[in-house]
Order: sequence, then structure tokens, then C-alpha cells
Amino acid sequence: MKKLLFLFSLSIFIACNDQNTQVSEENETATTTEQDTVQNFGIVIHGGAGTILKENMSDSLEQAYKAKLEEAIRTGHEILANGGTALEAVQRTINVMEDSPLFNSAKGAVFTNEGKNELDASIMDGETLNAGAVAGVTNVKNPINLAYEVMVNSEHVMLSGKGAEQFAKEQGLEIVDPEYFYTENRYRSMERAREREKKKADNKTAFYDPFIKDEKFGTVGCAALDKNGNLAAGTSTGGMTNKKYNRIGDAPIIGAGTYANNKTCAVSSTGWGEYFIRGVVAYDISALMEYKGLSLEEAAKEVIQKKQPELGGNGGIIAIDNQGNVSMEFNTAGMYRAKMNRDGELEIGIYSE
Amino acid sequence: MKKLLFLFSLSIFIACNDQNTQVSEENETATTTEQDTVQNFGIVIHGGAGTILKENMSDSLEQAYKAKLEEAIRTGHEILANGGTALEAVQRTINVMEDSPLFNSAKGAVFTNEGKNELDASIMDGETLNAGAVAGVTNVKNPINLAYEVMVNSEHVMLSGKGAEQFAKEQGLEIVDPEYFYTENRYRSMERAREREKKKADNKTAFYDPFIKDEKFGTVGCAALDKNGNLAAGTSTGGMTNKKYNRIGDAPIIGAGTYANNKTCAVSSTGWGEYFIRGVVAYDISALMEYKGLSLEEAAKEVIQKKQPELGGNGGIIAIDNQGNVSMEFNTAGMYRAKMNRDGELEIGIYSE
Repeated sequence: MKKLLFLFSLSIFIACNDQNTQVSEENETATTTEQDTVQNFGIVIHGGAGTILKENMSDSLEQAYKAKLEEAIRTGHEILANGGTALEAVQRTINVMEDSPLFNSAKGAVFTNEGKNELDASIMDGETLNAGAVAGVTNVKNPINLAYEVMVNSEHVMLSGKGAEQFAKEQGLEIVDPEYFYTENRYRSMERAREREKKKADNKTAFYDPFIKDEKFGTVGCAALDKNGNLAAGTSTGGMTNKKYNRIGDAPIIGAGTYANNKTCAVSSTGWGEYFIRGVVAYDISALMEYKGLSLEEAAKEVIQKKQPELGGNGGIIAIDNQGNVSMEFNTAGMYRAKMNRDGELEIGIYSE
Repeated sequence: MKKLLFLFSLSIFIACNDQNTQVSEENETATTTEQDTVQNFGIVIHGGAGTILKENMSDSLEQAYKAKLEEAIRTGHEILANGGTALEAVQRTINVMEDSPLFNSAKGAVFTNEGKNELDASIMDGETLNAGAVAGVTNVKNPINLAYEVMVNSEHVMLSGKGAEQFAKEQGLEIVDPEYFYTENRYRSMERAREREKKKADNKTAFYDPFIKDEKFGTVGCAALDKNGNLAAGTSTGGMTNKKYNRIGDAPIIGAGTYANNKTCAVSSTGWGEYFIRGVVAYDISALMEYKGLSLEEAAKEVIQKKQPELGGNGGIIAIDNQGNVSMEFNTAGMYRAKMNRDGELEIGIYSE
């Protein structure tokens, strides 16, 4: 099976090189030509989307975000440049963001209504279509590594809660005291959200508050294409501030938060999870490419700028296709993001320009 | 938005009636003609797929299955005939199967490795693309009703574990002692699976056993088209016998186990959940119709007879499209199933004929 898929991806690669790869304006990464037989590779990341405005951001904080995004993407890029797999690049890149308090994932995870941090993550291998996901873990330092273990060392795709934590222990992953995930900023956000909730206690569906929309967001994700033509994507999040009822968002849902398929592309989402689940966002981009012949850029625009707004959802995606073309599409004021191509050209962004 | 969708479905309905609806051999339900302005409606259900062989089935058990399938589908059909919504028909039809010990859902749920019953369910509204899902609940009598409450009374799509149970209580749903889900047959299945597992304890990934493949299956599901042209689908399951680590299968995953969209079709899956998640099975059928112009029958065959076997997965789906065409596609030895069209024509099946 793996051999078959490898031959298939190889034939895609050859086909790409044969047909003088179409390069659209946005896709500077697709620089392969007929003469150039070196396999293209590339990587793209996000650190969450939302109402990120320059006027609310200090210069030093902006610098901190940019530095961490650069550190993360360079980690993955080096792995790819040295011939490492897309899966490894995705995992290690996400680890850098998971270990930073700047992003709503792992170390920087937001708090639930009960004052806990519940972490979700997923990863998918575009070569085999294998996938792993975890929901609601509270003591695993790097949830993306647990998602990876679920994928390679279990016959399951998705584990949750205490069971997922038990599996993490058995696999020898780093377990931390839940205190590790405490950050003062995130705790205060949860308290503010609780306060706002109290004020509108007459509302039956109290956990929806239009003013805390931003606190629904924040996720980290990565998509990569390696020198063997294999794609992978991963997503890791702390979910929604002040969330209740062990809510599961899109991040651990294969097809919504994460999808990868060597036939098309690798995608990681960051947005209002409920709408991204209903829109099956990550797989929809792949399906539009496979079934309708859209380019990655066209498919991403269709889903993020048209279908999601029509449904009422907002957020963004990062994605890379099997030719190395990259998309960083969002319909919010900003999205922490970066991309880096084979030639080491780096682009970092925060706001919509 | 709702108005817009209503107009849209109305225009589909008119279009359907204008273009002299194509009726394939398998689809006796699409009997609408230009002269016939009554909106088509219909319903289809499954009670699980797997190695269901006539030689292993007593006549009385076969009769019991057929009688329960008929009772279930007649419940939903009556709702539709009286002008009720597809959503209500789906819910009430699934309730009948949830309350029976014959199917692996609610009352008849299989046991986890820890000797518990963990229930998953999801429901989706094809008109609004709203959806609700629950995973890992242990004391809610009818998980499909909880999925419905999540959809209509929360801003979330997916709740899990204790949080989902808390929400069920707050919504006034019927809570039962977990003992309610005890059935001797299912308990013995779990014990047998545990025994087999012990024998191959040297295997690191002990929870995979090719001999218990069947115990991965068993789910109930329903898809319906109502007189207003609205589609809905729902799925409810006890998951996999002897499952560990709070595994979540495809049943509560929107896009994998359940999907509904008035543009295309409503689908409920029953199969080896891991492969159905990786294949985004339910949404894939819709995407093949929307993006590639396939009929429901063609799309279902493509996914169940081609893509799933290639990936290594097995199981089946039931689905109905916005014209009332029905598919009951499976690649296993059998699938408990039934369909009923506007004219009250009923077809019940168990084995592959």
C-alpha cells in the first residue's frame, strides 16, 4: 500500500515537473522548472487568527510573536532541507509554538470555565492518509506528539480525556503537572469572560458572547511538503476561553481542523471551530482541488472568503499543495503566520495587509 | 439566511420537477414527474454493517431484527407523511433503535475494556448546516436527543464526557443509571475480546485484533427528506467492543459519520470508524455530488466500493438525496437496513443479496 502511494506521489511529482508548473502571483514557492529536477519542498505555519490589530499591539509584543514564528518555521525548514519527513517537520515546528506562552496551545492554552486547560491536537500523513487526534487532555506537555503516537502506535485515530492521557503515559510521552499550563494572561481572559457571562445570565445559551469572539480563536498549525513529495499537516490548540461541557472544537477533527493528502494538499485550520466543523473546512479545500480542479489558492479563497462567511464563520487556514504552492487565507483582521520555501525565502505576517 | 436556504431548496425542488428527474434502476423512490407537484419525501435507516451471515442467524433473531427495523422506519415515515421535519423523523426513528437491545447503540451498546458503555451520537440539519454531536456519554438514555440539544440549545457542535452529561442534565434529558445499558450478550462479547487480547499480549498494539473486526461495527443511523425539501441525518453508537483510551470513532464526527446538506444529500455511516474518519466518508459523498456532478448512487459506490477498500476500510452508508433517491451501499457481508418512499413502499434487508 505504502509502495503504491509512493509510486503515485512519484508520478504526481514527475507530472508536475513535466507540465511546466503553473505559478500564480501569490505562489512564489513553486519555482520548479523542467530543467530543475530537485524536488520542491516548503513549510507554512499559523499561530491563530482573530481580531489582531496593530493599534492593540506593542512593538515588543509584535517582535516577540515574529521571533517565535521565525524560530518555529526555521525548525521545520531545517528538517526538510536535510531530507527529513514532512511529518517530523510539522511535529517539531508545532512543538516550538506549543512550548511558547504566546499561542493558545499547550503552554499558552486558554482556560476552561472550570479553570482548567484542555488541549486538543491532530496530525495527518498525506502519503498514507493515516491520522491521529486527541481531545481534552490536561497533562501532556506536547499534545501534537500524542496525536502522532495515536497515529503510529495505535489502531485508532482519535482518543480523548483520561484514556488519551493513559495512552500518553504508556507511550512514554512527557507528562506535566497541569500547573505547567498556567499563564496569568490566559487566566485573566477566562475571568473576564466569566464576568461578561454573569452580566447576561438571563440568556439561556449563556456561553455564547459576541464580545468574546476572539477568545474562540487561537490555535497553532503547520503544513509541510518534504523532498520525497509527501505532505503532512498538524494542529494543536487550547480551545476556547471559558469553554464548558468538555467542548471539542475543530482542531482535533480530521477533515475540519487538519487534512493532508498527497493527491492534493495539506491544511491546518484556525477559526471559529463550530463553523469549521460544519464546513468540513480542511477536507473541503482538498475536495475542491481533486474534484473541481481548482488550484490551492482558488480552493482556499472559495472556502475561507465565500463559504465560511456565508455560513457565519470566521478564521483562516494555512496550506501547501503537492507542488509547493502555499496559501495563507483568512477572513479576520489578522492571522499569525509564516511561510518558507525551498530557497529559504521567509515571509512572516500578522495583520491583513 | 433560513429564508435564503428555503428559497434555494424550493428552487432545487422546482428544478427537479422541471427536468424530469432521472430515475436510475436502483432508485424507485424518485417517482416525481412534471405533473406531480407533491414534494417527494423518504427515509432510510441502518442498524450496523459487518460479517452478518444467514448461516449464523436463527430465524427468530432475523425476524426480531426485521420487525425492529420496520417499527423504526415506520415511526419516521409517519412523521414525514404528516408533514413533520426530517430532523424529527431522524431523531424518533433512531430512538426506536436506541431503545432496542438488538443494535449497538444506547440500550444495546457494547462494552469498553473497562466494562463501561460509552455512547457517541451526531445529527445534522441539511437546511442550515447546523450540527450537534456528543462523545463518550455514559448515562444519557438517548444520545441522539442529546446531540440534537447540543445543536439547537448550545453554540457548540461537539461536547464530550462529563461535560456533555452535565449539559444533558441541564437540558432535562432522561438520565439513566449506567446499569440500564447492561445486556448479557454485549458483556460476553467484551469478555471474549479481552480473552483474545490476553493471548496476544506480546503485541504492542494489543487493541487491534483482526478476529474481532466485527466488534468494531454496529451503529444505528437514519437519513430523511421531508415534504419541505429539507434533509437531515443522524447516527448513534456504542462504539467498538473492548475499546480503550476513550476512543472516539466516526459516529460523532460531522463529515465522517454524519453529514447533511440540502444541496446534495444526507448520509449516515456504519463501518470501521478509523477508516471512515480518514476518508471523511459522509462529506465525501456529498462533495462528489456537488463538485463532480455524480449521482448519489455513483458517489456512494465510489466511496464505499472503491475508496474505502483501497484505504483498507469496510462498512457501509445509507443516504438520501434532495430528490428522494436512496442509497444503501456496503462492502461487508451484510448491513441491517430499510428504506421507505413517499408511497409507503418498504424494503428491508440484512445480507448482501
